[in-house]
Amino acid sequence: MKLLDIYAKMKSDLDAIEGQLARSVTSEHALLTDASTHLLKAGGKRIRPVFVLLAGKFGTYSLDVLEKVAVPLELIHMASLVHDDVIDNAETRRGQLTVKSKWDNRIAMYTGDYIYGKALTIVTELENPQIHQILSKAMVQMCIGEMEQIRDFFNTEQTVRNYLLRIRRKTALLIAISCQLGALAARADRQTANRLYRFGYNVGMAFQIRDDLLDLLGTEKQIGKPPGSDIKQGNMTLPVLLALQEPAIKDALLAEIIHIRETNGAGDTKKALNIIRKSAGIHTADALATRYINKAIEALSGLPNIPARKNLTDIAHFVGKRNY
Amino acid sequence: MKLLDIYAKMKSDLDAIEGQLARSVTSEHALLTDASTHLLKAGGKRIRPVFVLLAGKFGTYSLDVLEKVAVPLELIHMASLVHDDVIDNAETRRGQLTVKSKWDNRIAMYTGDYIYGKALTIVTELENPQIHQILSKAMVQMCIGEMEQIRDFFNTEQTVRNYLLRIRRKTALLIAISCQLGALAARADRQTANRLYRFGYNVGMAFQIRDDLLDLLGTEKQIGKPPGSDIKQGNMTLPVLLALQEPAIKDALLAEIIHIRETNGAGDTKKALNIIRKSAGIHTADALATRYINKAIEALSGLPNIPARKNLTDIAHFVGKRNY
Repeated sequence: MKLLDIYAKMKSDLDAIEGQLARSVTSEHALLTDASTHLLKAGGKRIRPVFVLLAGKFGTYSLDVLEKVAVPLELIHMASLVHDDVIDNAETRRGQLTVKSKWDNRIAMYTGDYIYGKALTIVTELENPQIHQILSKAMVQMCIGEMEQIRDFFNTEQTVRNYLLRIRRKTALLIAISCQLGALAARADRQTANRLYRFGYNVGMAFQIRDDLLDLLGTEKQIGKPPGSDIKQGNMTLPVLLALQEPAIKDALLAEIIHIRETNGAGDTKKALNIIRKSAGIHTADALATRYINKAIEALSGLPNIPARKNLTDIAHFVGKRNY
Repeated sequence: MKLLDIYAKMKSDLDAIEGQLARSVTSEHALLTDASTHLLKAGGKRIRPVFVLLAGKFGTYSLDVLEKVAVPLELIHMASLVHDDVIDNAETRRGQLTVKSKWDNRIAMYTGDYIYGKALTIVTELENPQIHQILSKAMVQMCIGEMEQIRDFFNTEQTVRNYLLRIRRKTALLIAISCQLGALAARADRQTANRLYRFGYNVGMAFQIRDDLLDLLGTEKQIGKPPGSDIKQGNMTLPVLLALQEPAIKDALLAEIIHIRETNGAGDTKKALNIIRKSAGIHTADALATRYINKAIEALSGLPNIPARKNLTDIAHFVGKRNY
């Protein structure tokens, strides 16, 4: 089934979640409501809610319960984006001005805090402490991931393992627990929840690797910002780290990265992009993304063969597809 | 009993909490650990943990349980300070460099997020969803309070009610729930928890009013930063709003405030301070703080006459005492 068909099938439940998202950030404070709604309106794939709902199909499906997981997870994702944009000094996201550029960094900081808080008030309506525990631990890990990213800006010595640990925290974990908490909220058994966690984790890893590849290989139209944004801000992604391991291009690439760093991102990234694009690092990264997708699909193998399992498989294939 | 004697009596439990605080922010990420520990080491009165423990005496007192409320509440307070210092552009707090000035705003933002996250992982160990609900709602209100403060910078038209609502969110609420959650964690009955909430709320209001008075009337040595910091950054506190209602000084004070705003805080605040110090606003604010203290003590009247009740009364009197 195509991705759009899966969304179409889930439309009424996703619409309900969309409505809840909008209501959840509405408060008596106009600026907070505006700033929060601003990002919400920019849209997004809502992949976390989709995973929550599909995972819920492996237990006793109840939208009333599942939305109390789906909405908070999407809100936490959004809050992290608002804070990210401060760090990245990003002017636009999804073709819209970021909160920090439409308002300022201070507003962005409290808007993020506020959205985090709102997420928590919703999830705590579910009287299942295990869910609260899993979520709060993931939030800590996400922060560590963000800090690691700051620490590792322009660090050309970092290992691939370093990168993988970072994207695990930064991206994969929240997708993993979307699947896990969807299952737990629907009172699926622990083994099912663990399998779905593994599915989400591997999809999340593949998703971030593909996203990082897209930033190097995509067009501005495709990615909504100029390609090479990562390297410009010093974010050393997998293909770059792999390219730096190739003796024939290492020195030239290193010189370009140092140049970008020394010019504070004002320098041209074209040369660096050209070197990386031609490197074997692209293919190795690509192959690794595919391996993660295969592992994700493998994780589903022990689950009952219901339509949701097929949907998850299709989504995994979609994430795994080269889009550059 | 003097405040120091109350602390002395609670020493072993407060030491345990101090240890837990230090351990709680230690992670595999050195910078996050450093930045979090930095603020922790600056000390503080730990008034929230003190209130949690004393409130716990009205139920079944267990340090193991109560510290899972006390530590998160102090961490949430700390996280809000780290984020505050970004907004206030504060260089020092409690005589130490702030996280944002020792490192930078980005580090401060994620350090705050991280400390919030750690607070949640600890409190969610308590399998009492009601506690999680109360806490997350308070976090949202605190954010709204902070945003209101930003919105109201240099707003000389705001009402006293506006100010009271703001400090309620910004300060009083967290102190109120410290008392309430201490009682609930110790399985005290709901009425007891509500009374203790009311006690904490009123003490918190008095505390913030006194703090705002101190910023106007104290010496640099007393407050650890130059007096008049609030007005410099545009924070219109109660005595200022009251002074602005006095026809004889209104225009002169307004002119000074506009001057401070227009010079972005670089202008001299001396004249403004002099006008406010001589105004009746000081005394009215002072009297209001005393009223809140009386209400706090009143809230305790229905509670059993155990030593903790006397301790809370003594602390309230201490908070209510003029220290300028």
